[in-house]
Amino acid sequence: MTFMNMPNWLKQRVFLTPDRRALVFENKTWTFAEMYNETLKKASVLSLSGIKKGDFCGVLAANRPDMIFTIQALQQIGAVAVMLNSRLTAKEIEWQLRDANASHLLFDSLHEKKASAISGIPSISISSNSTDEQFTPRDLFSMGEICSIMYTSGTTGRPKGVIQTYGNHYASVTASALNLGLHVDDSWLCTVPLFHISGYSILMKSVLYGMEVRLVEKFDASVINESLQNGEATIISVVSAMLSNMINRLSGTYSPRFRCMLLGGGPAPVSILEQCKQKNIPVFQTYGMTETSSQIVTLAPEYTMEKLGSVGKPLFPCAVKIDGENEGEILVSGPNVTTGYLNRQEANESSFQDGWFRTGDIGRLDADGFLYVLDRRSDLIISGGENIYPAEIESVLTSHHAIREAGVAGVADEKWGSVPAAFYVANHPVTSEELAAFCIEKMARYKVPAYFIETAELPRNASNKLMRRELAARWRDDHAY
Amino acid sequence: MTFMNMPNWLKQRVFLTPDRRALVFENKTWTFAEMYNETLKKASVLSLSGIKKGDFCGVLAANRPDMIFTIQALQQIGAVAVMLNSRLTAKEIEWQLRDANASHLLFDSLHEKKASAISGIPSISISSNSTDEQFTPRDLFSMGEICSIMYTSGTTGRPKGVIQTYGNHYASVTASALNLGLHVDDSWLCTVPLFHISGYSILMKSVLYGMEVRLVEKFDASVINESLQNGEATIISVVSAMLSNMINRLSGTYSPRFRCMLLGGGPAPVSILEQCKQKNIPVFQTYGMTETSSQIVTLAPEYTMEKLGSVGKPLFPCAVKIDGENEGEILVSGPNVTTGYLNRQEANESSFQDGWFRTGDIGRLDADGFLYVLDRRSDLIISGGENIYPAEIESVLTSHHAIREAGVAGVADEKWGSVPAAFYVANHPVTSEELAAFCIEKMARYKVPAYFIETAELPRNASNKLMRRELAARWRDDHAY
Repeated sequence: MTFMNMPNWLKQRVFLTPDRRALVFENKTWTFAEMYNETLKKASVLSLSGIKKGDFCGVLAANRPDMIFTIQALQQIGAVAVMLNSRLTAKEIEWQLRDANASHLLFDSLHEKKASAISGIPSISISSNSTDEQFTPRDLFSMGEICSIMYTSGTTGRPKGVIQTYGNHYASVTASALNLGLHVDDSWLCTVPLFHISGYSILMKSVLYGMEVRLVEKFDASVINESLQNGEATIISVVSAMLSNMINRLSGTYSPRFRCMLLGGGPAPVSILEQCKQKNIPVFQTYGMTETSSQIVTLAPEYTMEKLGSVGKPLFPCAVKIDGENEGEILVSGPNVTTGYLNRQEANESSFQDGWFRTGDIGRLDADGFLYVLDRRSDLIISGGENIYPAEIESVLTSHHAIREAGVAGVADEKWGSVPAAFYVANHPVTSEELAAFCIEKMARYKVPAYFIETAELPRNASNKLMRRELAARWRDDHAY
Repeated sequence: MTFMNMPNWLKQRVFLTPDRRALVFENKTWTFAEMYNETLKKASVLSLSGIKKGDFCGVLAANRPDMIFTIQALQQIGAVAVMLNSRLTAKEIEWQLRDANASHLLFDSLHEKKASAISGIPSISISSNSTDEQFTPRDLFSMGEICSIMYTSGTTGRPKGVIQTYGNHYASVTASALNLGLHVDDSWLCTVPLFHISGYSILMKSVLYGMEVRLVEKFDASVINESLQNGEATIISVVSAMLSNMINRLSGTYSPRFRCMLLGGGPAPVSILEQCKQKNIPVFQTYGMTETSSQIVTLAPEYTMEKLGSVGKPLFPCAVKIDGENEGEILVSGPNVTTGYLNRQEANESSFQDGWFRTGDIGRLDADGFLYVLDRRSDLIISGGENIYPAEIESVLTSHHAIREAGVAGVADEKWGSVPAAFYVANHPVTSEELAAFCIEKMARYKVPAYFIETAELPRNASNKLMRRELAARWRDDHAY
């Protein structure tokens, strides 16, 4: 196999189609040649700052062109991008940087304050710097090399760095093309965060496909609707909260050029799917995670209603199976699946088995082989596209002197799909406001429970394991109407 | 890297999109589910005949559905398809089968006579057989496994079996999609032989893309034109002789659905390219060979006139370089490049170097990186899409008692692009008719020289090496008008 090396991706793209449009942001556009030029300038600055091949560099930035040039510059250098969720607190970010043994933290002007609160790691602004030094890009990318790291949590609440190699990204990008097709005039609207795999993978597609990306810093349903109605974009990645928002505000329908609404991060309400059908909006529901470098299972639009609630079938080079008779843990395999967690021997031993990755999610396959996700791994709460792990919040709550024990579960929310609700047994009286203020100090805002409910005891099974599903059921019973 | 195994391709395709149309031949169509059904029946018969995983099986058949089902059946079993050029003589085929250590020869009813002239290798008809036995297909394809073998000749005139792994085919098919795009309603018209990589690769694309193939047994320019005018097919692979033929007979233009005329096997006449431009026919000129599992360099239609004579730039995961200052041997690399020649240690040592494959062809790159092929390897003659190696014909000619030495070169031909012309120094008088009859006995018809020219001596360089280019130049001088 000579599949281990490939020409430097961005350099190759510029060699092949220099004048194709690569990026649109606000009123500015960049061709691939122009993007490469910006990338090499950035690489030169980073290189002069001491970043070298093999270094792990935190990236803390907003969805702006500078972030893209920085991500590409790290690839040119051969340094690994540790993509940081900008909603995390400085403490949470610092923990991840240390865990990844990061050499530098790169931040943009919007995140200067948060970056300055992180100590002990040299930080470099990516917003205002330039040099006349020429940077010489490398010729080859090695497919086994680590390209990016993104942190996800698990049952223990301790985040793990997911390794995404160049080979993982290449496999994901080509498998997605086999699934969604590839048109020379495609334009992908990116309003999901670039620090998540949903956004980062759009950048990889842009370079490998030679495709335009329309980057949006902040999601605004009306602005997005306009872009899809005037035919500027042909594909968009959304989570269900975004889709609901867009459909609720939509008058008329989208341009006939618009060909793919790629919907990830949990199921959409049926009423929204029905409206999409009426308006001929092609919704592709998907299932994927950081560990699969983007989508791994997708439902073609023609099955939206017939297979309501299903996330579809695997991408061509991938496979899905259930560990169990009927329902059970979802196992996936494919060349896009991570090679493992960074420095987590134990997690790697338990998550990978005979070439299969254990997702931790619970699902079932119907007779036709369509996958239904019944329960997210480790009682994962997906809130507006962000993953929230109950165990992480519980450990913060129990560090409060008034709380004896705590259990967190996701409860339905009209806007975000789901939000965390905290149930606790108290040592001393404490108000919800006090607990919320305590949490805000220690975790990203989106993780802070929307509700705090005092209870006499938490539901536990025979082996004393907390049953978070019982908590969610209790909430539903109390709020049924 | 978990890229070593993938789900069984045809089985996966049937699992994903069973009802999509896979094949159209004459007035009959097959969905992928139906094709799979035929394939499993074929696999069952072959399996009962003793063919098992790892066996090498010759395939001698015409472009008909049975040949496709047989090729797919061998993949289901895990046997290697040794694709035989049906224009070869029985002797030539027998040599290849022995070289590949083939366990069986599979033939269709059209090739019964030729198959029966091959001795010592068990042969099985694929045309009329069935069984009630169920065949259980394998679950996985291994990317490092050999999928197909196709013979090509070289300077020595002794053919070599080119290994094409599943990984080579997957890389070729995905790289081609990155280059040509991929539409859900694509239909590829296959009128090139399935025993050549140009045809075989269309089958691989069909399965991996979920794409319809319209199979044509014999090329007929009028029939093909009709198919492209009525919008049945969106893509076709042609060689320049076919294209000239089609364009010369075309009144009007093709359907707007038709989006790619993939032109391989040597340059097309400028007048034809100009007519294509006038009629808005999108011609993609390509450079590729058996060793690259199909195209590796392609010229986008917008450059046809600006870069006249060029074959374009490499596919995304591939690279091209020239061994020399200006002109020199063309070297290529990429995941679609063969892992080597079957049982040819010496050829493998000389053809592969630091991850590059030495094509033997001579070329140059212009300042923008476009490749121009100046001379085919080993004075290769490409005649109507077939490769002809002068050394092979020369060795036959010198075995004739009247001939002392011989030199063969390609000369221009209106219909075939190029045909072989034989120059010889005689021991005794001999007529062209006698020599032609002698050749017909020993080689495929298309290789038999169109002209026999007696000469006093052959042009040789200082080291006594035959200079075939001189022969071609001599012919041009004599036939200038």
